[in-house]
Order: sequence, then C-alpha cells, then structure tokens
Amino acid sequence: MKVTITCIQSRVCEDFDKNLFLALSKIDEVSSFSDIVILPEMFICPYQNKWFLSFAYHADQHAVLQKLSEIAKKNNIFLFAGSIPEKENDKIYNTCFVFDNHGNIIAKHRKIHLFDVNFESMRFRESDVLSAGNTITIVDTPYGKIGVAICFDLRFPEIFRMMVDAGAKMFIIPASFNATTGPLHWELLLRTRAVDNVSFIIACATAFSPDSTYPSYGHSMIVSPHGIILQEADNEQQIITQTLDLNDVITARSQMPVLQSRRLDLYHIEKGDYHE
Amino acid sequence: MKVTITCIQSRVCEDFDKNLFLALSKIDEVSSFSDIVILPEMFICPYQNKWFLSFAYHADQHAVLQKLSEIAKKNNIFLFAGSIPEKENDKIYNTCFVFDNHGNIIAKHRKIHLFDVNFESMRFRESDVLSAGNTITIVDTPYGKIGVAICFDLRFPEIFRMMVDAGAKMFIIPASFNATTGPLHWELLLRTRAVDNVSFIIACATAFSPDSTYPSYGHSMIVSPHGIILQEADNEQQIITQTLDLNDVITARSQMPVLQSRRLDLYHIEKGDYHE
Repeated sequence: MKVTITCIQSRVCEDFDKNLFLALSKIDEVSSFSDIVILPEMFICPYQNKWFLSFAYHADQHAVLQKLSEIAKKNNIFLFAGSIPEKENDKIYNTCFVFDNHGNIIAKHRKIHLFDVNFESMRFRESDVLSAGNTITIVDTPYGKIGVAICFDLRFPEIFRMMVDAGAKMFIIPASFNATTGPLHWELLLRTRAVDNVSFIIACATAFSPDSTYPSYGHSMIVSPHGIILQEADNEQQIITQTLDLNDVITARSQMPVLQSRRLDLYHIEKGDYHE
Repeated sequence: MKVTITCIQSRVCEDFDKNLFLALSKIDEVSSFSDIVILPEMFICPYQNKWFLSFAYHADQHAVLQKLSEIAKKNNIFLFAGSIPEKENDKIYNTCFVFDNHGNIIAKHRKIHLFDVNFESMRFRESDVLSAGNTITIVDTPYGKIGVAICFDLRFPEIFRMMVDAGAKMFIIPASFNATTGPLHWELLLRTRAVDNVSFIIACATAFSPDSTYPSYGHSMIVSPHGIILQEADNEQQIITQTLDLNDVITARSQMPVLQSRRLDLYHIEKGDYHE
C-alpha cells in the first residue's frame, strides 16, 4: 500500500488568526496530491512560554479545532495538526490533534517530555507553564498504525519501542528544534529512531522567523526505515512531500531483523506505575 | 579527571600469530601516551564463520590471553582487547577481554546480539557458529565505570540505558561494520548512543583488507556526550587517540538533562527472565 505524506513547514507570527489562515490555505493547496498532511509543533503561536499562556487563555480553541476538522473533511485527508497549547481545566498541554478524512478527532497526543534545556545559547523551560502528557499515542489509519511524538519526545528511545511494539510502521513528529540543538541532533535522532525501529519517520518543523526570539531550525524531513533521508527542507517556508510504499517496511525488517533480534529475555520495556 | 584513550585500527590476515604480533607491537607503540588502549572486534582472525571455528578449535587461546595480560602489565595500561572467538565447552562466543594495568582480567563481554542480516550486498549469520552472551558488561576503572558492547550490540538502545543506569559515563565498542551497513549506520548509531545517554563513546574497528571477503568499514571513532565526532579514522590501518575530560559528561548532562527527564513513571527497562 502506498501513501503520500506532506509536511507544511510554515512560519509562525504573533497573530493567531494569521497563523491559522496560513495553515488552512496551505492545507487546501497540498491536499489534491496528499493522503496525510502534517503541520508543525505550535503552528498557531510563537514558541515562547508567554505565547502558550496567551493562546491558552485568550484564543477560541474550539473554533480552531472546528476549522481544522472542516478542512480535513473538505479535502478528504488525514490531518496531523502539529500542536497547539491545549487548555484543560487549569493545565496547558502541548497537544497534537489528529483528524480523519471525515473531520473526526481520532487521537490527540500530549507531548510527554517537556523541553527543558540549559545551553548557554539556548535555555528553555516548557515545564514552567506546560503540563506533560502521560500516554504514548498510536493512530489507527487505513495506512497502518502511526505513532505520534512531539519534538523533545524524540530524545527518548523507550517510547519509540513502545510504539513499534504496538504496531507502528511509521512515526509522525511535529517539532521545532532550534539553532543550537538542530544542527547538533535533529537529523541524527530522526534517522536513528527510524533505523532502530525499522520504520518510516516524518517530521514537520516550523520555518525560521527572523522576527522570533526562538530561532527555529526548520529542516522538516522524511526518512526511510533504513535511515535514508528521502526529503528534507531547509529553514524557509517550504512544502515537502513523498509517496511512501509501506511494503518497504516489511522488506527493510527482513534485511535488518533487529526487532526480532532484541533479547527480550534479557531486557524489556515495561509500563511504569503511573496512575491518572 | 582526564583519560587518554587510543584505538588501534588494525588490518587482519589469515595468520593468527601475525595478527597477535601486530596488535602487541602497536600496543607497545601507543602505550607511552595512553591510559586505555582498545583493539577491534576479531582482531585475531578474519571476520568469517569458518575462521571463528578455526581459531576456536586450533589456536592456543590461553597463550593469546597470556600475551595480552603481559603487555597490559608491562605498559601499565588498561586494555580492552577487541574480541576473539572464545571457546568454552562446546560453545564459541565473540568475547572482549578487559585487562587492568596489572594484567588481570577484570571483565569479559560476550557479544549479546549476534550479527544476522540479509542485505543483498551483505548476508551474514554469526548465529550459525557463535553463541550469544547473556549479560551487559560494566568495567569499574580508575576512570569511572565503562560500558562495553560489541558491534551489532550497538543497534539495541536498551542495553545502553541499562549500562548508563549502572553508572557508565563512557562506552567502549570493539566493532567491524562493513561496506553496506557502515556508510548507512555506523556514525549515526555511535553518535546517537552518545547523545541519548549523554556519554562518551569510543569505537575501535578493523581496517579494510583488500584480501578479505568481509569488507570492513573501518572508521574508528571517538564521540563526545553531545554526539560530536572528536576523532575519526578512514578505513586504512590507523591509530586514533584523544584525551577526554570526564567532567565534560557532567557539564553535558546539566545542559541536556534527558537522563533525569525520562518518564520512569510511564516506562522503564526491566531485566528479562533469563536464567543461566
């Protein structure tokens, strides 16, 4: 089975309506040739804690989700809607809503690992304002099971093992690495999660904005199960798209049978004792 | 604390004595400036199943270990002696013996994951003649705890997590990737294991031999805890050496606190139910 996947690497400004309008018009533009469309992490507001709060407390989140639902239905696409600051009760999450081609929300992934780093050139503490999600996310689609993780989640191999064991043959990653961690680790981690789990990985990032205090790295990327880069953006506003053959996962897993070569008699990943 | 580590990327021929002599003379050559010296995987015999059997059944393994012990003691170095086909009863293992600076064997790592792959350009089934080891290996040295893994073990992120949780700040990897998997995955996997576990990684590979049926990739490599390549060989016979400051691990772990950001309430790696 084949599936055509498109990443919309868009630039984000301080006007929520403009960001949404840009995303919707780009979705309209690419849907004729796409089965699945992906937006970047925080496509709706600048990547700063104060903007997460502002969106969560002042924007009409229901209206945003309604528009995303309508456009997925109208265009008959599966939409992995990047992420938005999702407010529930007094908590805010970094959440990817997933819509099917009828406009139904079929999954939401709340970023599990919040972005807290202390480089001299890049300090950030998402955990100052955001709460973390507490479950891995697998979306069942006509194109097979797809695992979803957001940006910093990429740094934790455990959740990719859990997703592959739940049947994922493909991972979709809305993200927004930056000028420090991007050149160091972005391509490296995407390619390795693909290789370790012999799965496709598709990552959609925000474009670089000269006006923003957060220097997004861009470089949206589509990677094969052997870790080969099939498509890669630079850091400008850009669309990347690729038709993937899911049989390539089966072939790659027979060439490189690492999933079955794991020594589950020596180690295995267990669920923790987390309770809601 | 600082430690100078040297990898001897040597070429292997079909004469066991010549291979040993080459390794010993190179160790003599580099010891004056090294605290730790590393040999490649199967430095003693060509990387083919028939040669593993031949060494295991015909060579004097005790004499080989004796020579390695003597040279570690004579030169006052810690020696991670690549690997040899180790015969015990009717089984053969791919084993890295580790000697302290008094010539004592302080650890041995038997390759846990055997190299079985099915690419058109590279088919290999170590499991046809070798048995797998069943434990991770941590060596306690004056330079901190060091995790050891051999070649294909590199493909399994679980054991690196287990080693880092056991206190490792550095991984040493005797290896012999090839012309197919080397360009695809060698640098990628080494750098990611370093980054995921914010640890140094030092990998010592065999050099390419024009006469061999196994096209070794070479490219011995020393990588920082942020995944930066500090030293890299090509595929010729070559020595690489680097002085590492173990404080860099502490600094890197504070800049990128992913080990403490793991969600151990959601997942953790458990030991399996393996019994000897």
